[in-house]
This record gives sequence, structure tokens and C-alpha cells, in this order.
Amino acid sequence: MIPENNNQYRTLSVGTGIDYLSEIEDVHTKLGGNTETWKISEIGDGNLNLVFHIQSEHHSVIAKQALPYIRARGEKWQLPLSRAYFEHEALLRHEKRAPGMTPAVIHFDHDMALIIMEYLEPHIVLRKGLVRGEIFSRAADDLGHFLANTLFKSSNFSMEASEKRADIALFSGNSALCEVTEARVFTEPYYEAELNRWTSPQLDHSVSLIRQDSKLKTSINEMKTIFMNSSQALLHGDLHSGSVMITDTDTRIIDPEFAFYGPMGFDIGALIGNYLLAYMAQNGHISKENDRAMYSEWILATIQSTWRAFDHRFRKLWETERTGGLFPENVIHRQDQEESIKALNRFLETVLQDAIGFAGAKMMRRIIGAAHVEDLETISDPNLRAKCEKHVIALARKLLLHRNDYSSMADVVAITQDVRKRDPE
Amino acid sequence: MIPENNNQYRTLSVGTGIDYLSEIEDVHTKLGGNTETWKISEIGDGNLNLVFHIQSEHHSVIAKQALPYIRARGEKWQLPLSRAYFEHEALLRHEKRAPGMTPAVIHFDHDMALIIMEYLEPHIVLRKGLVRGEIFSRAADDLGHFLANTLFKSSNFSMEASEKRADIALFSGNSALCEVTEARVFTEPYYEAELNRWTSPQLDHSVSLIRQDSKLKTSINEMKTIFMNSSQALLHGDLHSGSVMITDTDTRIIDPEFAFYGPMGFDIGALIGNYLLAYMAQNGHISKENDRAMYSEWILATIQSTWRAFDHRFRKLWETERTGGLFPENVIHRQDQEESIKALNRFLETVLQDAIGFAGAKMMRRIIGAAHVEDLETISDPNLRAKCEKHVIALARKLLLHRNDYSSMADVVAITQDVRKRDPE
Repeated sequence: MIPENNNQYRTLSVGTGIDYLSEIEDVHTKLGGNTETWKISEIGDGNLNLVFHIQSEHHSVIAKQALPYIRARGEKWQLPLSRAYFEHEALLRHEKRAPGMTPAVIHFDHDMALIIMEYLEPHIVLRKGLVRGEIFSRAADDLGHFLANTLFKSSNFSMEASEKRADIALFSGNSALCEVTEARVFTEPYYEAELNRWTSPQLDHSVSLIRQDSKLKTSINEMKTIFMNSSQALLHGDLHSGSVMITDTDTRIIDPEFAFYGPMGFDIGALIGNYLLAYMAQNGHISKENDRAMYSEWILATIQSTWRAFDHRFRKLWETERTGGLFPENVIHRQDQEESIKALNRFLETVLQDAIGFAGAKMMRRIIGAAHVEDLETISDPNLRAKCEKHVIALARKLLLHRNDYSSMADVVAITQDVRKRDPE
Repeated sequence: MIPENNNQYRTLSVGTGIDYLSEIEDVHTKLGGNTETWKISEIGDGNLNLVFHIQSEHHSVIAKQALPYIRARGEKWQLPLSRAYFEHEALLRHEKRAPGMTPAVIHFDHDMALIIMEYLEPHIVLRKGLVRGEIFSRAADDLGHFLANTLFKSSNFSMEASEKRADIALFSGNSALCEVTEARVFTEPYYEAELNRWTSPQLDHSVSLIRQDSKLKTSINEMKTIFMNSSQALLHGDLHSGSVMITDTDTRIIDPEFAFYGPMGFDIGALIGNYLLAYMAQNGHISKENDRAMYSEWILATIQSTWRAFDHRFRKLWETERTGGLFPENVIHRQDQEESIKALNRFLETVLQDAIGFAGAKMMRRIIGAAHVEDLETISDPNLRAKCEKHVIALARKLLLHRNDYSSMADVVAITQDVRKRDPE
């Protein structure tokens, strides 16, 4: 069932793509017309895959193909093609659980590790919007809703125990992608790993301090322990601002190839951490026309309203769609509601604290690990960029070390503002 | 690979067993001699399986066969034969991780869901020893060692991430047995389930109070949440005192057919909970010759030394055999040891608190659920039995509600002594 690197597989190219895709009936139906009018371009900017945009006169589609290695690192960094299978499986589940919030899947080609899907326009990548200073008025509600729906509905609050265990077994097959996270997020930034890089020499001293920071390295390993030992829900697995395509009226979540059963806080933390990266980068994007002060406040408000939307929707689902084996109706009656809601509060507080820790982990690795983000990379003055990056490091460290002292996103926002006000060490 | 109910399967009996087993070379080699001298008897006293004892003149073996239904409940309670497969797989892993602490496996017959293993003598079931008031001087050290070795070595402290995920996928197939636990331990005792029973009318009022106890029902569902969401380690899954065969010099752990990846505290809690059941039952076993006072103290001391042995061995393994991806050597150096040991302390404290909660859950279900224990069932005076059972209920409730307030087994022992001193409600 799960496609492995196989004989049928070959990589598509701009030269061969149209010929191959025109043989797929679903693609033909979608694009229509004479295939000679079709145009193809390669638009992938990620680390792992080929992404083609195929246009006919009136329609277009995306064809995303997994490569058998990590694109950004070269052919010696093998990565199984099966991740396309897991991405497709996750897209189907996300579409079912949060309808209309993923790109529509047009066709999945197992042997070619190729997903053909809706071309989203006029959407842009959320990260690019955050760099440009664009406001998206639905971002918080939509992403909070997506998180609550996909996480609740893949948990034991909703799923039958046997159905969930079968799905855990399936997604355990995506282990290679989990191992990428384990290495890139939780391990490599904390020792002299080959592909680490940072703004040098400005951050050299900071990196040296991190490598000697027993408390930080202990915290990161506690987060890694949670990452590896929890099977709360089916995660997107890589929910940064580059995995969100957005307009002011529509939000879609793409690229769940890292999907696995893990702690709910990991998806929430990925998103929050990337908002905080964007916030700390704003000082690097100030222009005469725009001091980014209001926009910075919008980012922080969005973090709070994202959690609020998540929390609100999650509680609603807990109240109305609790069909799994936990807190079952034949045990928890109306008169038990007050106590059981205290348990829900404790559960959500732990999710929040996990999210805060994972946000810190995600932020740190984008400054001192292998894969960096446009938010900071587009700041051309290295001294200015380094100042922003030092703010990120200082905040990430606080979030990792003190995650269990926070009880709301308002606390996170307050500490974030406080860190940015100070001169970073 | 995993045997399902199949055409080759048929139940063995005292009439057919020798003929079938004599065809198996491993059995023949072990028992030797003329098969006409072999004797067979059925000795199963559990809920789920057939257990035969086959003797030749000088040797003997055990043949354990899974039935396609729950023996104690009848043929309409289907249960998959694959549990024999999982039991065998777990026995192999336990033997590797804690050598000499399981019965040696002589042969596994897939199609027949039949495990042939070493006959343990002069071992007795630990539970029977606890009822009789027998002291086993190695119990605490051996079981603490078994728990530490099997739990640590199947965790991400020891296993490669990919190897562990593959094993999680495998044992996810044992979902039906997990569902038995989810129903019998965490759900059925807390509503009017068909097969619940208790000492009536003495406990009627207690049961009625439990059914209205919002805090208790909330706590039990929090423990169920941990049970269903954690994949810390490969558990035995049913480690009560009936799963331990013991002499004063040797300890073996049998019957891991409930094996799955779950929270470490579940195995520890099962054992501790059953010691506490034994303790509370001692007042029902007082005779003129033996007031059971010293023996009661031995049980409590054994609880503490079991944890001490577990804790000691686990820390030793953490220090010397930490080969998994957590707290890796290239990140955590000698100078980071102090901080990382604080993290280990927090980890073990959580294991302890989980164990205390699970102990409470396991105790409660043995008093008011479907499956009871010899410790209490052998107390023939229903008033005396009910008094002991009320002590169990009172203690179990405290453990469930206040598990996170305890920081050592000494705390558990103190509260246990305190509860037994009082007249139960």
C-alpha cells in the first residue's frame, strides 16, 4: 500500500511533465482543452520536493512530487518517497475534519509519489505576507478552527480506540520524517552539526553560550521526550507560516508530509513560534513609510486570538462531539460536568504549555540550525538581522525554560514585548 | 504474520493435547521418552485461556492456548487469537531485556495460538503467597529490576526512534486487549455495566456514592487519557500479582498478552495496586496463630523497596545505556549532568504519580467491577470482607484524586496505614 522507492518512479521535469500529466484523466478533466496550450513551470521553494504549476487557458493545477532525497541538501540525504503517501493520507483526513481548509486533491499517483491538487489563487504564503506586513483578518479564526478540528477529531475524545490505534500504526510508517524533526529541531542546533549556520560573527558568542547552557539543553530534551512519547492526535507536523496559503477571506493549510500522531502542542507551537519569529523580524523591515509598530501589535493580537479560537472550538467539540472513549456519556453525567470541565482545563493548560515549549524549540532552530526563514533572511544588514535574531534567541530560551509557568497566551505576549524592548545580549 | 482466527485453529483438550503436542519436535525433545508415559491436565485459572500441564517421567511443560472468546464470560465475548502472538512477541522482548525473568519459550504455534513454555516449579503465584502470608525475600529487587529493564529498554532513552515506531505499529495490532482494559478498568466500574458485582448489600451504598462521585469519575478518565495517549514503553499490560510466579530465590513474570506501548506507570501501578489490595485483605486472613501484623508491614516495605529497586536500576541505565535519541551524548555533556538529572527526577516523579493513579484504578475495579481477586474473595465472612473492601475503596479514591500530591512511595505507605486505621464508611 505505501509506495517505496520503486522502478516506476522517475522525477518529472518541465520537459516531461505535461506529457506525463496529460495521460491522467483527472488532470485532463480539470484543465481541459488542448494539451498543447498547457504551460508548466517549476515553482518549488521548499526543501524536499518538486512543485510544478500547470496551466491551461482557463484552469491550473499544482503537481507536487517527492524526491528520494532532501532537495536542499543533495542526493546523499535520502528521504523515502512514502512521505507523499502520508501527505495524501493526511490531506484526506484534514479535508474531512476541517472541510475547505486544504487544497482540493485532484489525483494521487502512488508510483510517482505525486499529488495533483488545486492551484490556490490569489493566495499567498502566510510567511511572505508577514514579511511584507500584510494583515489577514481571518487568519486567527481560521487557523484556530483548523487546529481544534483536526486535533480534537483525531484524538481519543473523538475517535474509536481501535480506529485510532490502526491509524497510529499506519503513520508510524512516516518515521523517517519524524526523525528529520528530531534531528533538525531538537538535536543538531545544540552541537556542532555539519549544516548549522548563523549570522557570523555577530551571533558566535550567543551560539557558544547556547552550547554550554545546561538548562536550555535539558529543556529541549524534555520537549523532545514529549514529541517522541505522545500520541494525542494526528498532527500536521510542520505547521509553520510557510505551510499556510492565505487571502483576506480564505485560509488553506498545505504540505502535511510530516504528519504523525504526536502531542497537540507541537502543531500549535509551530504556528505560534513562527508568528514570534515574524514579530522579532519586524524591526528589520521598518521603512520610512511604515514603522511596523501597528503590524507588530497585529501579530501579537493574532497569536492570542488564534489560541482563543482554538480553545473556544475545542471546548465546543468536547461538549458536543465527544464520541471517543474518554469522559464517556454513560459515566460523566450532567451533574459531573463541573468537575470534568476542570479536567478539560488542565488538559488544555498542558497543551498550551507544550505549545509554548515547542514554539521556543522551533524558533531557536531557525536561527542557529540548518534551515532558516525568510522573515530574517530578507534583512540584508547583518547587524540589524543579528539584533533581531538575538531577540529570538532570548525569547525562545525563556519559553523553553519557563513554559510551565505560563497559563495563557497573554503571558507569552507580555514576555515577548518585554524581550523586544531590551537590548539583546 | 499475526495469526487471526483461522481454519487451522482448534482448541486442544485433555483428550487431544498429547497427540497434538507429541508431533512438535521441540516439545518432544524437552519432555523426551515414550509419549505414552506423558500426562496432561488443564490447570488454567485465568479469564482468557486454556492452560495445560504436560508431564513426562522427568520433565514437564506448560501449553497455553488462547480461546477465541473470553473464557470467564462465554463465547459471545469474542477476543482475537492474535493475543497469543503478542504475548509471544512480548515474552521474547522481556527475555532479552531482563534475562531469566520470564518462563523460557519452547515453541510457538501460530495457527493454534499456542505457546509452549517452561513449567515453573516450585514457583507459586505471588497472589497466592500474599493470601497465605508468605514472605519472598527477592520479590522487591527482582520486580523492580524487571520493571526498570523492560521499561527503560523499550523507551526512547534506549531504542532507536525508527525501531521503536515499528514496534509501536506492531503492538497497535493488540488493540482488542487494550480495549478490554479500557472497558474493565476505566469505564465499566463507573456505570451499571452488566457484569459488575460487589459484596452486597454491604457495599451497595459505597457503590452508589462512587457512581455520583464527580471527582473520582473525572480522575479515572484522566488516568484513561494517559493510558490512551502515551507510548513511553512496551508494557506488560497486566502486571498484577497473578502474573508473577515466585519462590524465595527466583521471580518470573508471565502472561504479557496485554502488551502494548503505553505509560510506564501503568505496569508499576498494577503491581503496587495489587500489593495494596493484598495489604487491605490481611485483616480478613487473621488467625489465632498469625495476626498478620508483621506480614502487613512486609507488604508495605516491599512496595517501597520495589520502587527503590526500580528507581535505582532505571537511573543506572539512564547513566550507562542511554543509546536512544533522548538526552544524547553529543548534546548533554558531563557539565550538563546536574541539570539533566533534574529532568530525570521530574520524569521519574511523573512515572510515580502515574503509577499511584493507576494503582487506585486497578484496586477500585477489583472491588466493584467484573473481575475480583482471591485476596478478598477468600474472605468468607461477607461483613469482614466488606470492611476490607471499604478500606480498598477509600484508599483507591485518595490515590486517584491526590496522585499529584505524592512525591514518594513512603507517602503512599503513610496514607495506606492511615486509611486502614480508620473505620471505613
